[in-house]
Amino acid sequence: MTSILVLNGPNLNLLGTRQPDVYGHDTLDDVEQMCRDHGKAHGVTVDCLQSNYEGELVTWIHEARGTYDGIILNAGAYTHTSVALADAVKGTEAKMVELHISNVHAREAFRRHSYLSAVAIGVMAGFGVRGYTLAIDALLGHLEDAA
Amino acid sequence: MTSILVLNGPNLNLLGTRQPDVYGHDTLDDVEQMCRDHGKAHGVTVDCLQSNYEGELVTWIHEARGTYDGIILNAGAYTHTSVALADAVKGTEAKMVELHISNVHAREAFRRHSYLSAVAIGVMAGFGVRGYTLAIDALLGHLEDAA
Amino acid sequence: MTSILVLNGPNLNLLGTRQPDVYGHDTLDDVEQMCRDHGKAHGVTVDCLQSNYEGELVTWIHEARGTYDGIILNAGAYTHTSVALADAVKGTEAKMVELHISNVHAREAFRRHSYLSAVAIGVMAGFGVRGYTLAIDALLGHLEDAA
Amino acid sequence: MTSILVLNGPNLNLLGTRQPDVYGHDTLDDVEQMCRDHGKAHGVTVDCLQSNYEGELVTWIHEARGTYDGIILNAGAYTHTSVALADAVKGTEAKMVELHISNVHAREAFRRHSYLSAVAIGVMAGFGVRGYTLAIDALLGHLEDAA
Amino acid sequence: MTSILVLNGPNLNLLGTRQPDVYGHDTLDDVEQMCRDHGKAHGVTVDCLQSNYEGELVTWIHEARGTYDGIILNAGAYTHTSVALADAVKGTEAKMVELHISNVHAREAFRRHSYLSAVAIGVMAGFGVRGYTLAIDALLGHLEDAA
Amino acid sequence: MTSILVLNGPNLNLLGTRQPDVYGHDTLDDVEQMCRDHGKAHGVTVDCLQSNYEGELVTWIHEARGTYDGIILNAGAYTHTSVALADAVKGTEAKMVELHISNVHAREAFRRHSYLSAVAIGVMAGFGVRGYTLAIDALLGHLEDAA
Amino acid sequence: MTSILVLNGPNLNLLGTRQPDVYGHDTLDDVEQMCRDHGKAHGVTVDCLQSNYEGELVTWIHEARGTYDGIILNAGAYTHTSVALADAVKGTEAKMVELHISNVHAREAFRRHSYLSAVAIGVMAGFGVRGYTLAIDALLGHLEDAA
Amino acid sequence: MTSILVLNGPNLNLLGTRQPDVYGHDTLDDVEQMCRDHGKAHGVTVDCLQSNYEGELVTWIHEARGTYDGIILNAGAYTHTSVALADAVKGTEAKMVELHISNVHAREAFRRHSYLSAVAIGVMAGFGVRGYTLAIDALLGHLEDAA
Amino acid sequence: MTSILVLNGPNLNLLGTRQPDVYGHDTLDDVEQMCRDHGKAHGVTVDCLQSNYEGELVTWIHEARGTYDGIILNAGAYTHTSVALADAVKGTEAKMVELHISNVHAREAFRRHSYLSAVAIGVMAGFGVRGYTLAIDALLGHLEDAA
Amino acid sequence: MTSILVLNGPNLNLLGTRQPDVYGHDTLDDVEQMCRDHGKAHGVTVDCLQSNYEGELVTWIHEARGTYDGIILNAGAYTHTSVALADAVKGTEAKMVELHISNVHAREAFRRHSYLSAVAIGVMAGFGVRGYTLAIDALLGHLEDAA
Amino acid sequence: MTSILVLNGPNLNLLGTRQPDVYGHDTLDDVEQMCRDHGKAHGVTVDCLQSNYEGELVTWIHEARGTYDGIILNAGAYTHTSVALADAVKGTEAKMVELHISNVHAREAFRRHSYLSAVAIGVMAGFGVRGYTLAIDALLGHLEDAA
Amino acid sequence: MTSILVLNGPNLNLLGTRQPDVYGHDTLDDVEQMCRDHGKAHGVTVDCLQSNYEGELVTWIHEARGTYDGIILNAGAYTHTSVALADAVKGTEAKMVELHISNVHAREAFRRHSYLSAVAIGVMAGFGVRGYTLAIDALLGHLEDAA
Repeated sequence: MTSILVLNGPNLNLLGTRQPDVYGHDTLDDVEQMCRDHGKAHGVTVDCLQSNYEGELVTWIHEARGTYDGIILNAGAYTHTSVALADAVKGTEAKMVELHISNVHAREAFRRHSYLSAVAIGVMAGFGVRGYTLAIDALLGHLEDAA
Repeated sequence: MTSILVLNGPNLNLLGTRQPDVYGHDTLDDVEQMCRDHGKAHGVTVDCLQSNYEGELVTWIHEARGTYDGIILNAGAYTHTSVALADAVKGTEAKMVELHISNVHAREAFRRHSYLSAVAIGVMAGFGVRGYTLAIDALLGHLEDAA
Repeated sequence: MTSILVLNGPNLNLLGTRQPDVYGHDTLDDVEQMCRDHGKAHGVTVDCLQSNYEGELVTWIHEARGTYDGIILNAGAYTHTSVALADAVKGTEAKMVELHISNVHAREAFRRHSYLSAVAIGVMAGFGVRGYTLAIDALLGHLEDAA
Repeated sequence: MTSILVLNGPNLNLLGTRQPDVYGHDTLDDVEQMCRDHGKAHGVTVDCLQSNYEGELVTWIHEARGTYDGIILNAGAYTHTSVALADAVKGTEAKMVELHISNVHAREAFRRHSYLSAVAIGVMAGFGVRGYTLAIDALLGHLEDAA
Repeated sequence: MTSILVLNGPNLNLLGTRQPDVYGHDTLDDVEQMCRDHGKAHGVTVDCLQSNYEGELVTWIHEARGTYDGIILNAGAYTHTSVALADAVKGTEAKMVELHISNVHAREAFRRHSYLSAVAIGVMAGFGVRGYTLAIDALLGHLEDAA
Repeated sequence: MTSILVLNGPNLNLLGTRQPDVYGHDTLDDVEQMCRDHGKAHGVTVDCLQSNYEGELVTWIHEARGTYDGIILNAGAYTHTSVALADAVKGTEAKMVELHISNVHAREAFRRHSYLSAVAIGVMAGFGVRGYTLAIDALLGHLEDAA
Repeated sequence: MTSILVLNGPNLNLLGTRQPDVYGHDTLDDVEQMCRDHGKAHGVTVDCLQSNYEGELVTWIHEARGTYDGIILNAGAYTHTSVALADAVKGTEAKMVELHISNVHAREAFRRHSYLSAVAIGVMAGFGVRGYTLAIDALLGHLEDAA
Repeated sequence: MTSILVLNGPNLNLLGTRQPDVYGHDTLDDVEQMCRDHGKAHGVTVDCLQSNYEGELVTWIHEARGTYDGIILNAGAYTHTSVALADAVKGTEAKMVELHISNVHAREAFRRHSYLSAVAIGVMAGFGVRGYTLAIDALLGHLEDAA
Repeated sequence: MTSILVLNGPNLNLLGTRQPDVYGHDTLDDVEQMCRDHGKAHGVTVDCLQSNYEGELVTWIHEARGTYDGIILNAGAYTHTSVALADAVKGTEAKMVELHISNVHAREAFRRHSYLSAVAIGVMAGFGVRGYTLAIDALLGHLEDAA
Repeated sequence: MTSILVLNGPNLNLLGTRQPDVYGHDTLDDVEQMCRDHGKAHGVTVDCLQSNYEGELVTWIHEARGTYDGIILNAGAYTHTSVALADAVKGTEAKMVELHISNVHAREAFRRHSYLSAVAIGVMAGFGVRGYTLAIDALLGHLEDAA
Repeated sequence: MTSILVLNGPNLNLLGTRQPDVYGHDTLDDVEQMCRDHGKAHGVTVDCLQSNYEGELVTWIHEARGTYDGIILNAGAYTHTSVALADAVKGTEAKMVELHISNVHAREAFRRHSYLSAVAIGVMAGFGVRGYTLAIDALLGHLEDAA
Repeated sequence: MTSILVLNGPNLNLLGTRQPDVYGHDTLDDVEQMCRDHGKAHGVTVDCLQSNYEGELVTWIHEARGTYDGIILNAGAYTHTSVALADAVKGTEAKMVELHISNVHAREAFRRHSYLSAVAIGVMAGFGVRGYTLAIDALLGHLEDAA
């Protein structure tokens, strides 16, 4: 059975409580439940983790190898500053979809650069928390094609 | 009934015949039929247009006002050079999803900049032609929320 | 009898319907009529054309040679991206006044650069649609001096 | 009765004697008289001041508050280097039209940047000393609209 | 009773032992005691934490919400590289004063840029460890005004 | 029989009438006749097209596939701004020689950058209208080698 | 008896009347009185001067040598453009604290660069007019240490 | 007895399993054993640590003070993004040799910049895992000279 | 009789008292006397002025027209920031030699750029106060050639 | 009788032995013979020289004055770094055609800049060793026009 | 028998006499003897050459082909400016180790860029003249692996 | 007896024959004779050398050590590209005056940067060939002060 890891980075534990006009009213728990439900509906296992530590996210990507078929990665602020996360994805040859809740391309200049895009299958940004289920769909489609 | 315009820009008429390793084997006709079918399955009208002319794309965005509820815009090369298209979207207050078949964020530096992102709801890139149906889903979700 | 061509570029057909706080409530028809009236009052023929196509604007500048004594050019978004329009003005040695309805110098960074300024007599920006009649005055004054 | 202050910056006292091919043959006295006459013809008081001191120009902008309805500002070289003048205009909420005799946009790169444009109603450049009366017209039109 | 969190970032545990000509001879313990004493003298609770982990600092800022009225943040090296810390401050709407012991503005170019300044009440740099009590004073003054 | 398409971009219809010191006295008709004659002398079909529209040039490159063995492309101003033309050449795998009448490398900075060079066989610039026959020679040589 | 010079630069005479949301409601007179009072409370002479002239500020810094023990310098717009002021501080080896009422680090890009920081003891920004007394405290502390 | 700490940063735990064409087939265990053996052969204690956490690496550098005579630091991705690691080396006055397995100078532009080089004795890159023993030799030689 | 104006800008009144290792021990009075003596020895009138005001320097350059045959200009810090001074020299067609006491080309990056060089006969830097008499020699030589 | 100097720079003596996919299989001897033969066929003397020394190439350009009617210059790597070669061409007013075997405009960024282009008649790149005879043709055509 | 060429560039003949704090007290003769001795101890021939001429270094690299198994290249100042040396290494497919006596990565910005790194096996910098024997070890290791 | 070496770089052997409007009509022989005469008049030996080879200039600077008291260096084009010459001056601790015949600061942007200025006593530019004797005067003055 296909399994997917949904990885959320720094400050995403604040979801639903922080800048609701930008990030919406759903909490991280809501989002993770929505992901698991969406997975179940598609016959796919979805697990979810969140950390504020770059090192922990790197470690989880390492550990995902052999366990998960693909990763949805919303690396939050680390998207723009972490070479280590990109190296982790590349080093483990993870199939990864880069996700952003808000349209980062329309925000501050430093948010337009991502170290992750070059090692991602694709990028999705601006569709709110609904983006998570769209990203799962995109990843499943990609895994299917590659199968 | 909700209606969506799928707008393809320069060189996308070559789809399926050009760099298949990057853009896949589906032709533009295949993609447009897939979009219309996907729309029908969701009870939504989907119309499709393609042009190599920046001016014609601008004009179609103008004409979409009042006729379509949203636009899927794969502006191809004009993504990176056209202020006029961005102004057209902004001037008509179109709900627009920016789409790219390949992961533009992982290609030449000049493809990483988009004039359109700042006026888009969101951006989707790298999911192949499947991206069109994902983009329709994302747009429909957005229209629903706004309704 | 002196004759002037007023050339409007992409999206200016939306005038009066688009971002009224920036561009005002007059439609393109209103503005063109105002230009023709202002011309008549000064004993000058004023003709007006608008296109969303860079190539058509280039062609009209070519055709203006020998027919019009000067051009008022509001190239809209092409101001910032079109070397071809600047080459057309230079190649035909057109007397051209660059016009902008809004104060482009106070907007996004990319709007502060104009390919046209280097081949213009002068630049006028920020005076709303009244700028058109001021530009006609400026052009007539310039033609008078040069006569 | 509407009153306007015409403010000229450094080196403009050389007008008519300096680079006549760029700046024409009229002296500053001629230009100031032309401005006053133009004002009189429109039932408007026009006063004129010139200084080579950035600090004096800043002070005059302060003193204009409550006395003049608007300012025509040809800040000469300070256009490109003075944050203080821009702050003075912003701090006094002066209605200001930025004026240049030559087409600064077609000259050295450092003359293409203006600290003043962001706080100006609009910009006028390249129309020679006639630009002063055009600028007065533009300012009067703006004041009328705002009235 | 008002309470303040003093947060020190990476390498600040070396205080008093590292480059004394730049950072002085007081240890982190001395500084933290000084802060607590200063708080007591003003009837304010001051708590102090230090971490070399970006993720731990992010987490502490989250946890400060609802517990502390404001934060004094000396993020050390993370000042210049951490978008995550800035997002944490913004996401929790923390009242934060950015502090540097040395005059970072007079050091290496990369130390002149701070991701934190844009989300800080204000910035204080160069006053040695005395800066901590000045920062507490500044924060208390700000809280008072806002009260 | 080998066949070649000579494609001229914006403003090249002005040839012979525009800046003769830079572009010479031959008209576009003269140049096209010279190309056809040169082809005939080498037993090669040469067809010639000119357009001021980027979109039309893109379309002609598409249509050349299967019809012409190679393209001589003088894209004029679009050389410096058009990603779409480069994509068209790449997408159709056209054998293309980039041509400029004047020595663009010795002119304004923005004329030194070409989007086309990366997809061209080679570049020829500065040899006046004679460059067209040299470019045909170069293209024929290249086709011969590749045969 | 220790004596301090508080030096205010261009436009600060507008204090209390200009952009009160940014600069507060206290006038320059209020602020100067507050500084003198604060000085008196600490047994320190505080004198205050303001000028819109860069040259006058330079001269006052020269004259302060031998008369004042330190300078609080809010150079306003000259902070970002004046090498002369920095040279004056350096040339007279003045003990100077750089002060800004608003958080300049969070404003326009050009306000983030200061020529003064490299010759200042430290920098304080964003604490409103209260910053003046904090700056006096910081300077007094610094003078004490150095004594 | 001389003792050396070999510190490996993020993703180096993947050694031998990740991009073997770039990093070779030896695992981190192999490399660490090789380092210890090399140390033993030279009568030197070599200890080895690896972490994916920037904060943990900072802490270990702190703790190395007084325990180890020098550090071999392969900071992996943190080389390019961590000011904190550089500050830790500088703050503890550690004798540090910067090591890279691959020739970082020949890879992506962002890998050519190192925050660590300025605080290192020297840099060694491109010699594969053999670089570790060369680095130990270099460090021992340096310590000898300094003795 | 030939006459020369020696113009010194901001902070040069501190000469002999400021950073003697960089600027030497001669005061401005000494230098001006040296210049006048050197002139007298060559049968040339030398007058000397110093100001900290950019506007006053501009004005003196204006007034020098018709009175002095050439100017030695040590504009100090205004060298790097004043377009107005350059415009004054150009507007009055003054024969000007740019002088610096220290080798500005070997100091901070911002001191390597001069707005004045483009309008100077030549530049002399790094020869201490002796540079003034060398500059007078250079100017006299130039005037002789031009005569 | 017309005579041409073909000048080859550093590493071109490796021709035919170095990166044959980029530079082809002809040796420098082959190429030089081809040039001489091509010259003979056109009644033109062609001499050929190669050097790895920038200084020797400069000297040969000096010596060519009065001896050769024009120069074909393939300066290899010095194209991108040598101001001295450009000065030699300009100082001797040599008629020079800049030649590159490979399409330098499509290679590393630093190969896209040429100091020589600004002093060349024209540029030819990407046509392999055949470029040499095309360059001779282009030069002869140019000399003919100028005659 | 394996043979290695040690190539030293401009100014390295000054070794031992120039900036001893940076480059140490060993002369070039000492270093070359040390290299030859080190080679002998490993059963390897080591030859040494030094030149101040870029062209001579290029030529020696050419001549090394077929004669030496590898090159240790300390190109001194040419490291930062010579494309020709890099082309020579690439064109001859030389196995080359880039060496610097001082830690160039910690010096002036222009010394941080090397044209050679991209064509080197690896880079070694900062280990003084001992670096030469370490570089020989590294090269021998590399040759062994490749054998 | 004091002795000075006048060193001229590439293309300066063309003096008097190349761009006389920029460089004057004196040949290099004239200039060198003038230098020797000027030296004789001051009781100083002046020797003169010219080379087009960077390596030869480097070598002459080396050889000057112990033989000459100072160097006048007009490095021509190598001024802007040669780190090796700067290193030679620094490595031999030569007292060097940088000389340019034309005002390089007023020419192409790339001529405004000099690698030599940072190691020169001072810089002199724009005074024609007279600059050589002024430079000798400046150098003698400097040597005198240092004596």
